[in-house]
Amino acid sequence: MAKREALKILKKAGIVLTAEEKKRFAAVDFGLGRIREIGLEMLVYVNTPRYCAKELVLLPRQTCPEHLHPKIDESNPGKQETFRCRWGIVYLYVPGPPTPKIHARLPKGKEDCFKVRHEIVLRPGQQYTLAPETLHWFQAGPRGAVVSEFSSLSIDSRDVFTDPEIQEWRRRAPIIDEIQR
Amino acid sequence: MAKREALKILKKAGIVLTAEEKKRFAAVDFGLGRIREIGLEMLVYVNTPRYCAKELVLLPRQTCPEHLHPKIDESNPGKQETFRCRWGIVYLYVPGPPTPKIHARLPKGKEDCFKVRHEIVLRPGQQYTLAPETLHWFQAGPRGAVVSEFSSLSIDSRDVFTDPEIQEWRRRAPIIDEIQR
Repeated sequence: MAKREALKILKKAGIVLTAEEKKRFAAVDFGLGRIREIGLEMLVYVNTPRYCAKELVLLPRQTCPEHLHPKIDESNPGKQETFRCRWGIVYLYVPGPPTPKIHARLPKGKEDCFKVRHEIVLRPGQQYTLAPETLHWFQAGPRGAVVSEFSSLSIDSRDVFTDPEIQEWRRRAPIIDEIQR
Repeated sequence: MAKREALKILKKAGIVLTAEEKKRFAAVDFGLGRIREIGLEMLVYVNTPRYCAKELVLLPRQTCPEHLHPKIDESNPGKQETFRCRWGIVYLYVPGPPTPKIHARLPKGKEDCFKVRHEIVLRPGQQYTLAPETLHWFQAGPRGAVVSEFSSLSIDSRDVFTDPEIQEWRRRAPIIDEIQR
């Protein structure tokens, strides 16, 4: 079970969650039913109109599919976020000159859904900040990874995915954003 | 040396910094010259107009002195922040009914500079969010502590301390706020 394996990775990384948080900790398969390839495990620590922080876990070689955070309105140009690798290795892909031989393995049959191919390698202690409206996707190395995400307000329901199958899943099963004061 | 000891605590907590970050990691004595009692070690991971994240380290029984984050202007009601304990124990004090027998030991001769006495105990995985303009101070337990701070934009130069000696030090040695895009 992906959630249980991700909790083990968090433990290896030395990151402590409370009992309540372990329940809330969620595995997401983006509606594709192949979570060990395309998926993500995560916990939102705090999400307010002014900032957001999450812990993300990737199983070995698990991929967070390509997406971007669009402009919301005049006061919110879209989510800006910083990924900080805490444990393991993360291969992050962003717009820019395509890296000739990327480390990530593209999920079979989904190659067209991973358009940006400029590779950033994040090892523990390394971080990268993404501007709003920037296409990105990422994959863990062979042992998995833990990534702290620091950002502006997170409105997951507004994320735009490259994979039309994921977009269709989002229409069928709308997300309810949880925003604190 | 406080910085070296704090880096050891981070290591025990399993938190990895890059070589560059270890250089930037700073010990602050608030101008009082008694850093083992009143002080803080910290690293700013990211500070943009939209969000901020820091790692804070406290040596055993070290105290971050009482302060608040004032309103900046019409668009910024003051810094809102979430403290998440990652390692050790933190005793956090906020406005509210004074806790009869607090765990923290007040620094000698500075008792009047710690006015709020409502105790919140944070163990690993526990967190607490502070509204802007809320007086607060905190002290680590006997082994020290590591605290992740998630917040809105941090403008340290505007912090208001209860201790007039710290306020005076701030006037003599103004802080230059580092804000990224």
